[in-house]
Amino acid sequence: MNTDEDLLARVALTWLAEPGTRSVHRLVDELGPAGALDLLLDGGAPEEWLRAAVAARSRDGDARAVAADALARTERLGARIVTPDDEEWPPRVEGLRRMVLPGANRRVDRETAPPLCLWARGGWPLREALDRSVSVVGARAATGYGTHVATELGYGLADRDWTVVSGGAFGIDAAAHRGALNAGGLTVAVLACGIDQPYPMGNAALFDRIAETGLLVSEWMPGAEPHRPRFLIRNRVIAAATLGTVLVEAAARSGATQTFNRALAIGRRPMVVPGPVTSAMSVGAHELLREQPSARLVTGVPHVLEEVGRIGADLAPPPRAPQRPRDLLDDEATLVLESMPRRGAVDVDRLAARAGVDLRTALRKLSLLEELGMVRRRDDGYALAARPARAAPAPPP
Amino acid sequence: MNTDEDLLARVALTWLAEPGTRSVHRLVDELGPAGALDLLLDGGAPEEWLRAAVAARSRDGDARAVAADALARTERLGARIVTPDDEEWPPRVEGLRRMVLPGANRRVDRETAPPLCLWARGGWPLREALDRSVSVVGARAATGYGTHVATELGYGLADRDWTVVSGGAFGIDAAAHRGALNAGGLTVAVLACGIDQPYPMGNAALFDRIAETGLLVSEWMPGAEPHRPRFLIRNRVIAAATLGTVLVEAAARSGATQTFNRALAIGRRPMVVPGPVTSAMSVGAHELLREQPSARLVTGVPHVLEEVGRIGADLAPPPRAPQRPRDLLDDEATLVLESMPRRGAVDVDRLAARAGVDLRTALRKLSLLEELGMVRRRDDGYALAARPARAAPAPPP
Repeated sequence: MNTDEDLLARVALTWLAEPGTRSVHRLVDELGPAGALDLLLDGGAPEEWLRAAVAARSRDGDARAVAADALARTERLGARIVTPDDEEWPPRVEGLRRMVLPGANRRVDRETAPPLCLWARGGWPLREALDRSVSVVGARAATGYGTHVATELGYGLADRDWTVVSGGAFGIDAAAHRGALNAGGLTVAVLACGIDQPYPMGNAALFDRIAETGLLVSEWMPGAEPHRPRFLIRNRVIAAATLGTVLVEAAARSGATQTFNRALAIGRRPMVVPGPVTSAMSVGAHELLREQPSARLVTGVPHVLEEVGRIGADLAPPPRAPQRPRDLLDDEATLVLESMPRRGAVDVDRLAARAGVDLRTALRKLSLLEELGMVRRRDDGYALAARPARAAPAPPP
Repeated sequence: MNTDEDLLARVALTWLAEPGTRSVHRLVDELGPAGALDLLLDGGAPEEWLRAAVAARSRDGDARAVAADALARTERLGARIVTPDDEEWPPRVEGLRRMVLPGANRRVDRETAPPLCLWARGGWPLREALDRSVSVVGARAATGYGTHVATELGYGLADRDWTVVSGGAFGIDAAAHRGALNAGGLTVAVLACGIDQPYPMGNAALFDRIAETGLLVSEWMPGAEPHRPRFLIRNRVIAAATLGTVLVEAAARSGATQTFNRALAIGRRPMVVPGPVTSAMSVGAHELLREQPSARLVTGVPHVLEEVGRIGADLAPPPRAPQRPRDLLDDEATLVLESMPRRGAVDVDRLAARAGVDLRTALRKLSLLEELGMVRRRDDGYALAARPARAAPAPPP
């Protein structure tokens, strides 16, 4: 299904028009990526502004050549491109098809479609990483209070095996990522620029740590710059990909409330941490709690889990979800797998103890897991198999 | 109607059984105060526990003699007794007839009837003082944050001619009273003991100041001591007498939430000030906001007035970041502005593509932005206007 041509077309389309553009997504639904690209390059976009945008972009270069470059660059970076045809595509982002934003203007058209593809850097399969995930977002100019709360949330969620998703910005975002990293947990930064262009630069070391154990994700090709509108476009992915969004500190009418409003628009659990009413950085949070009847006040990890745990339990399995190898495992194999350290290797004795199974069972289940490609044997014990990064296809001649 | 005999009987009844006892109030409704007193003293109470209570009390003295002493003592104190027959009786406390507390036990029977009479010290007619009133209640062990917020609320409400009602306790209560006094406003302390027995003693000077310009009020005769159960009995009056109750700081499941629950039970506007989730003194406040759907989060006087004030008159203005020229722009103009390069110029074609608008729109919006001094035309295209710092796009969210 996912031919090289389609992949190339998807990449080209993210360059011709900003990701998330509903009219482009509609064309892809109708004609497939390659067909949609052909139509756009032939000047056949139904909307005048889109025709103009494609024409202007095309004066900067040939879309297919740009895409081929991007594929090569992706491979050099050790990154991969994930599309809806891949098994690791996170199904929850398709919820963006249902997103309703008030008004019907250009901005709405641009921020309401699922991504065409996602760049990913890091060993975890994207889908698995986002399966049990919560986003923690908030102000860049966070106070000490907000930073403390976001760090605690990140730590506590990761410590309970929830993936912490945020935008990699200064302030609340960075604190949430750091908290998760400190817990040895999984954290995903969804960027508004190429995954090779960490923004802000001051968080470069943080991005490296995230990529080592978690994931950097973006809808934009390597080299893409974080233009301001891209943050709002990106925010919808943070909202859609997670089971709930926790807002920690936001000034009045600030951008930080945007992700939150997207979470509301897409039906994810919207949660807000209150703060001192004397703090300008909590005005936006309190305003949401006052004005959004579905916004839920949360004061810590137990409250967050109450919200997303419930939803998670109620969620019917996605209709088209391909069966995952994990679903085939029996209880003991699952225990052994879940007892594997996220990083590094472990010897069988310790693993058996951790999983609460006897040595023979551990060995039997490990060999099953090895056969399924989930675990690999190393000189120093057993380790989780990093999902092989899907190499980007070679550029067309 | 209010004969000396009836007044004496009301006072005696407050001594025989605690104020707020529903079965006593029912007898007064049926038989009048003097008739109810006769029945009780003859051992004719319908409930066994009430017969026992009256018998035990009567061993301490003669109810009518005690009441006569109290009347004399009241006069010596320069105070007065207000009954439902008086013009200054605050009608809102009669709402307690409708109060529904869950369960049907002794406590509920004791805390759900209107007062039989009220002692008052201070020049203002009670009814007038309570007409436009809000209660501000909260923890005794308030933090600096809570004290600050309660003082500001007391000041701001009094400054807008609202009477601030509270319980005269340390912490939040005292701060609210002080705020109102500092604004030169009217404040009423509803005590859980005789009005000559200021409790806590540490607030004695505060009570004197309140009595000078506002009112001290109690359901108990002079000399009555603040037994612990009396605080809960008193709290229902604070809730009933005011249009709304604002809770500022409360520990988990604390007594401070009781007044609040009474406000809920009696249909008054229940308001809660949030605080740092890291503060133990805000746990009760956050619990109420999570668990009571009708509890309204308020962050200051405008929100409180929005709840209790006349519609339209005291509406809170929406929180606003300082008005910036940018706020005047429509979506498309904002997109165009946000798509301008930070440095250097850009030609219209490229800008239109980047912003995702058609060429004509881009030109129209550019001329608007030029007029607003945010953008200027140069030989090589359009650039952000250099000087006015306001015109530069804010850093990305």
